[in-house]
Amino acid sequence: MTEWLTTLTTATPAEGYDLAVKLSRAAIRMTQPDAAVRDRLRPEYAEDADSLIAVAQVVATHFATIAAANGYWRTGS
Amino acid sequence: MTEWLTTLTTATPAEGYDLAVKLSRAAIRMTQPDAAVRDRLRPEYAEDADSLIAVAQVVATHFATIAAANGYWRTGS
Amino acid sequence: MTEWLTTLTTATPAEGYDLAVKLSRAAIRMTQPDAAVRDRLRPEYAEDADSLIAVAQVVATHFATIAAANGYWRTGS
Amino acid sequence: MTEWLTTLTTATPAEGYDLAVKLSRAAIRMTQPDAAVRDRLRPEYAEDADSLIAVAQVVATHFATIAAANGYWRTGS
Amino acid sequence: MTEWLTTLTTATPAEGYDLAVKLSRAAIRMTQPDAAVRDRLRPEYAEDADSLIAVAQVVATHFATIAAANGYWRTGS
Amino acid sequence: MTEWLTTLTTATPAEGYDLAVKLSRAAIRMTQPDAAVRDRLRPEYAEDADSLIAVAQVVATHFATIAAANGYWRTGS
Repeated sequence: MTEWLTTLTTATPAEGYDLAVKLSRAAIRMTQPDAAVRDRLRPEYAEDADSLIAVAQVVATHFATIAAANGYWRTGS
Repeated sequence: MTEWLTTLTTATPAEGYDLAVKLSRAAIRMTQPDAAVRDRLRPEYAEDADSLIAVAQVVATHFATIAAANGYWRTGS
Repeated sequence: MTEWLTTLTTATPAEGYDLAVKLSRAAIRMTQPDAAVRDRLRPEYAEDADSLIAVAQVVATHFATIAAANGYWRTGS
Repeated sequence: MTEWLTTLTTATPAEGYDLAVKLSRAAIRMTQPDAAVRDRLRPEYAEDADSLIAVAQVVATHFATIAAANGYWRTGS
Repeated sequence: MTEWLTTLTTATPAEGYDLAVKLSRAAIRMTQPDAAVRDRLRPEYAEDADSLIAVAQVVATHFATIAAANGYWRTGS
Repeated sequence: MTEWLTTLTTATPAEGYDLAVKLSRAAIRMTQPDAAVRDRLRPEYAEDADSLIAVAQVVATHFATIAAANGYWRTGS
């Protein structure tokens, strides 16, 4: 599991956001490696407002890291 | 979904705040792509104090990133 | 709603803290624009210890941003 | 209420920690200005493990800000 | 318990992520040193969506630290 | 209570982590100074998965501060 993430550099902020979503999901996959269990849990959080907000918080934290890694994409893509 | 966010630069802090709200909602949209479900969940959090505070926490995290990206708008807009 | 926040610069840390409180409330106002609903929710969180602590967390996050924006007010006010 | 906090500079990390606790409480005081209500809520969180942990999270966030403001007290006090 | 973590430097972002997971678990191990209790608790959070999201939040916070420590792996691995 | 923390500098990341745990507990001790109450609460969180994860979040926040204070221990110890 050490080749799934080779760089934090992305061409655009939108791609950086996609990467933040990917990083958020990775921790859940590592803590619950059984895909069948994860699939069963999905409706539990995807249809619960508070769970969705909590997911958004994790994504926001990773996006902060990725944005810093990319110098905030200040000089364009 | 890779063109919705092209820059973190905004003219003013208020526009930066609007962008933070937009970034917060994006994670929810990506985790629950079904607009009908999201609409059904909306009153659940928009009329719950704790949910609203949790949303504010996500916005605060994104605003920190955007403020840093804009050099805190120190030299004016 | 784009003129309510023109700068993150404040004269003192205390004014910075007041601004952090203002930024915290803004997300709630944007997510629940109906003032009547917000008024109804107010006692719900203002008299609940956990809600108050959650509000304090949002304020702390915004205060971090504002403090950085002001160079931590190191050179006096 | 604009003179209660004039500087983030402290002589030692321990004093910085005390200030972080003070900043954490300030948000609660501003959100619930009625001292009688706050006194009534105190046992509710001071005797609840999860509330105490949540308070510690707010303190940690403010301590990060104060530590940065003091250059992490690297050159001694 | 002072030799389990000798460096925050990793060769790749993926290894940095693994280290973030390790750091997240360390706090739980230190707070609940009894392995039998931790084993009993495992299904409780590994099969609960909100717990998994909370774990992901801790990992995200540690990953931010590790990414900064590695200069965001900007110059390749 | 102003001499318990004289520096954020540690020789190794592992010692920095121990300090992060210590800082996390300090806020709880300051908010609930009664040791008997804290002892009574201990099993409540040490045997609850969500409480343990919340503790880990506080530790992660303090570890970020301590890591920055130590320049991420980049030049060795």
